[in-house]
Amino acid sequence: MEAENDQGVISKFGKMTVSKGEGTYQSNKLANKKAEKNESTGKAKKSTRLGLEVKKLENLAEWYSQVITKGEMIEYYDVSGCYILRPWSYAIWEVIKEWLDNQLKKLGVQNCYFPIFVSKNVLEMEKTHIADFAPEVAWVTKSGDSDLAEPIAIRPTSETVMYPAYAKWVQSYRDLPIKLNQWNNVVRWEFKHPQPFLRTREFLWQEGHSAYSEPKEAEEEVMAILDLYTKVYTDLLAIPVIRGRKTEKEKFAGADYTTTVEAFVSASGRGIQGATSHHLGQSFSKMFNIIYEDPETQEKKYVYQNSWGMTTRTIGVMIMVHADDQGLVLPPKVSNVQVVIVPCGITAKMAEEEKKKLIDACVTLEDEFKKQQIRVKGDYRDNYSPGWKFNHWELKGVPIRIEVGPRDVQQGQLVAVRRDNREKVIIKCLEASKTIDCMLTQIQEDMLSRAAKDLNDHTKICKDWSDFCRELEHKNIILALFCGGIPCEDQIKKDSARDDAADSGAPSMGAKSLCIPFEQPRLVELGDKCIHPNCTSKPKYYVLFGRSY
Amino acid sequence: MEAENDQGVISKFGKMTVSKGEGTYQSNKLANKKAEKNESTGKAKKSTRLGLEVKKLENLAEWYSQVITKGEMIEYYDVSGCYILRPWSYAIWEVIKEWLDNQLKKLGVQNCYFPIFVSKNVLEMEKTHIADFAPEVAWVTKSGDSDLAEPIAIRPTSETVMYPAYAKWVQSYRDLPIKLNQWNNVVRWEFKHPQPFLRTREFLWQEGHSAYSEPKEAEEEVMAILDLYTKVYTDLLAIPVIRGRKTEKEKFAGADYTTTVEAFVSASGRGIQGATSHHLGQSFSKMFNIIYEDPETQEKKYVYQNSWGMTTRTIGVMIMVHADDQGLVLPPKVSNVQVVIVPCGITAKMAEEEKKKLIDACVTLEDEFKKQQIRVKGDYRDNYSPGWKFNHWELKGVPIRIEVGPRDVQQGQLVAVRRDNREKVIIKCLEASKTIDCMLTQIQEDMLSRAAKDLNDHTKICKDWSDFCRELEHKNIILALFCGGIPCEDQIKKDSARDDAADSGAPSMGAKSLCIPFEQPRLVELGDKCIHPNCTSKPKYYVLFGRSY
Repeated sequence: MEAENDQGVISKFGKMTVSKGEGTYQSNKLANKKAEKNESTGKAKKSTRLGLEVKKLENLAEWYSQVITKGEMIEYYDVSGCYILRPWSYAIWEVIKEWLDNQLKKLGVQNCYFPIFVSKNVLEMEKTHIADFAPEVAWVTKSGDSDLAEPIAIRPTSETVMYPAYAKWVQSYRDLPIKLNQWNNVVRWEFKHPQPFLRTREFLWQEGHSAYSEPKEAEEEVMAILDLYTKVYTDLLAIPVIRGRKTEKEKFAGADYTTTVEAFVSASGRGIQGATSHHLGQSFSKMFNIIYEDPETQEKKYVYQNSWGMTTRTIGVMIMVHADDQGLVLPPKVSNVQVVIVPCGITAKMAEEEKKKLIDACVTLEDEFKKQQIRVKGDYRDNYSPGWKFNHWELKGVPIRIEVGPRDVQQGQLVAVRRDNREKVIIKCLEASKTIDCMLTQIQEDMLSRAAKDLNDHTKICKDWSDFCRELEHKNIILALFCGGIPCEDQIKKDSARDDAADSGAPSMGAKSLCIPFEQPRLVELGDKCIHPNCTSKPKYYVLFGRSY
Repeated sequence: MEAENDQGVISKFGKMTVSKGEGTYQSNKLANKKAEKNESTGKAKKSTRLGLEVKKLENLAEWYSQVITKGEMIEYYDVSGCYILRPWSYAIWEVIKEWLDNQLKKLGVQNCYFPIFVSKNVLEMEKTHIADFAPEVAWVTKSGDSDLAEPIAIRPTSETVMYPAYAKWVQSYRDLPIKLNQWNNVVRWEFKHPQPFLRTREFLWQEGHSAYSEPKEAEEEVMAILDLYTKVYTDLLAIPVIRGRKTEKEKFAGADYTTTVEAFVSASGRGIQGATSHHLGQSFSKMFNIIYEDPETQEKKYVYQNSWGMTTRTIGVMIMVHADDQGLVLPPKVSNVQVVIVPCGITAKMAEEEKKKLIDACVTLEDEFKKQQIRVKGDYRDNYSPGWKFNHWELKGVPIRIEVGPRDVQQGQLVAVRRDNREKVIIKCLEASKTIDCMLTQIQEDMLSRAAKDLNDHTKICKDWSDFCRELEHKNIILALFCGGIPCEDQIKKDSARDDAADSGAPSMGAKSLCIPFEQPRLVELGDKCIHPNCTSKPKYYVLFGRSY
């Protein structure tokens, strides 16, 4: 049974997953060759179509599709906009989840589970909110062969699912704050072009929902959560982010304001929303009647609320930022396997005893690493050549590959190769676990530095509309003075779109505002003008603009 | 906004949750009373309707509804058959999840995530399978205002979602085994009476799906998983189970055979399926074409598959088995709070210094317990009386309550009260954490022993049909000789149903087969007859029959 996605990608790549044992590489012919540790595997790649067949900067869409399938992150699925998260990508989500869940619990947030279904009347209670989500809501109208009495919606987010219960639970100020979180799936039946991880009709996320009596406390939480989201990107995924507030046009439907962490994909020159933390103010509490009695005045008061979420998009951003022409490049902190050990130089003529000695040396190393809490895997499969394995684990982005040959065993050493910069070092076995541990830390830091430099190089301050448009064409994101008005923002988007949409695969859409960075590049000065040439309003702040996902 | 469930329970209990601060108990009047540690709180309960208002054995349905709402496990929801899992119950699911997930990883099972949606043609690929699930499948037919081109199903289970991908992934025997698991939500739009945890239209579970080349290995896995499910019940939830195989009539649709752990609810006299582990044989691999080439004969071979799942029903079984007329009784292993410390004897006249001394003593204890890895909570709220707190934590089922009064501080002691049997002991503070640790172990053991005795007392061997029917009426489950035939099983169910269905709230449905226990009570002997009087077939084994959930 051959599944097809709406881009027809499956038909091209579905049968070429890397783990197959029946390819050219399965034969032992190659094992007869000298250990390939110093050879490029480029030639072999071509003949088996094992590696990537396009370059990141030449055809980003095709490259992405190959990276995620050949790197075993995603399997395509026959429902459009839905994808299978294979163990290799799901393990990354588990690392993010565990870390974030722990941090949330430290903030006093409790986990819970609310139903996936919302009745129509409750869903439509907050008008601004539903106006934004309505076109994307999936409706269940039948069970078996019978029509339901009322169509029931699948949650696109759970504000409307949860807040009727909050109204029941809150009577006194003593019932506050409420801080709940759930790890679940949501569905947004978008009509934009879907992309695995980045834009999918079903996705996994956590959604936090809190209620406070004091607006100040609520607003402090908004920032505390944004700090955690920042750390997921910088500390776990090695991705720098720009922190800021969304403009009126881009804020969450129904929120007072939305804070965000924005990342940047230099290969496409596009910004991407990383995660958002919203202060809802009292708009939902007024609609859902979440009130308590002021203990002093006996006055009925509406609570102040927040909601905040981070999704599996994180994984897609990580791939877009770090992966290269050889495949995935996983930050050590989130990689399920941080170090892979590949025994090399085993030949058909080799004495059994010597072979055993080699494998034993690898296993000993493995044990050492495990003691040091390093996530290690020894690849002892005898039906794949070292070259095949190098290629395989490179595609999968394992941070460090360790090669051990018979001569290395004799000399009490090993060869370690970094995935991120392909640097090769010889390490004494005695200091191996300590050295590898340092290398992992170094890789994590270097990956973040490189991405930070990339972001920095591609962030331009523009005061002039023609500069703005030119920098956009040069795949940059732009800091520009902006009045904050929604009509002006619409105009900027329209006027910065390229006319010659058809002439290349490059994105031609206009610039959106990504955020109003908390860290402003300069003060707004007297006489400054809004970036759009026709705008006569006063600029309020620098806003980060860019093409976006 | 007032949610209503289809039983109208909300209207009666929705406004009476325990955590409110505005009830009679909020006042400090009660705090002026002498510490209530030796008093029953029964009187107070009546006046505030804080406690349970019905007895387990008098009105089980009403009792259950009160236990789960007043114990803060569940909030009712306005979509029929869907319920809100509040933090107190979700935390139990997290304990089960963490333990089971760890064990599964040790077996080499990897986590992943497959889409919630299935296209119609794929869903209907395995005929026996879909025949069973079809009437309960929820269909999405619209997004926003637009009709979908094809209705899309929400997974009732993921065999049909996952196996097309398995067909792609398996080419060689070297790609086997595949052992994947997902923690997700599924939807079965049942028309039977819904009950929180026990029978819900959406529920949380894990579903494992494996594929093997060797049937023997697959079958070994079926049992290894059943062993884990057994341990969840016995070791975590303190519930004994009967392990066995399902009859032909009751096995999973599409499976070769189904193994199961069955629990027993003595209050209703009904059995309940705890979790199931299925050997699917080759029925799905033949439909989904999951094949590999035999390395020796080059023959195409179909893989052997298993699927297995455990749901949030576990929590409902735990409540039904252990909770009592005072509320929940949580096994220490799964309780989010194992010990609650309540300072007692604080009066309005008390000197601040003395009050501080008391609270400090409690905090010191708390720290001691935390060091011992005991999950402890100090309840220092000054707007609730000790009596209110006793009642509150009793309702919530915390295994041990510790009471500390000023005199206890002087004497370096504390009072510990077991939730399960209300036993009260005085403990020297110096040995507190060690003693409490032992008590927790003892509680866990005692709860299992009591439930095991209960199960044993209510399991009857019957050789005669009239005995069978009488024991069923006496709320027992029955081991009886059975021929194994589906028509005969239908007949047993029909003929053991009570006629006078309307005369009481007691269940009147007929007996279903719960399982064919692995541990048979006796050998089948020559001349033995099948339990149904009209059956002339030879009995094959003893089968466990009972009314069931």
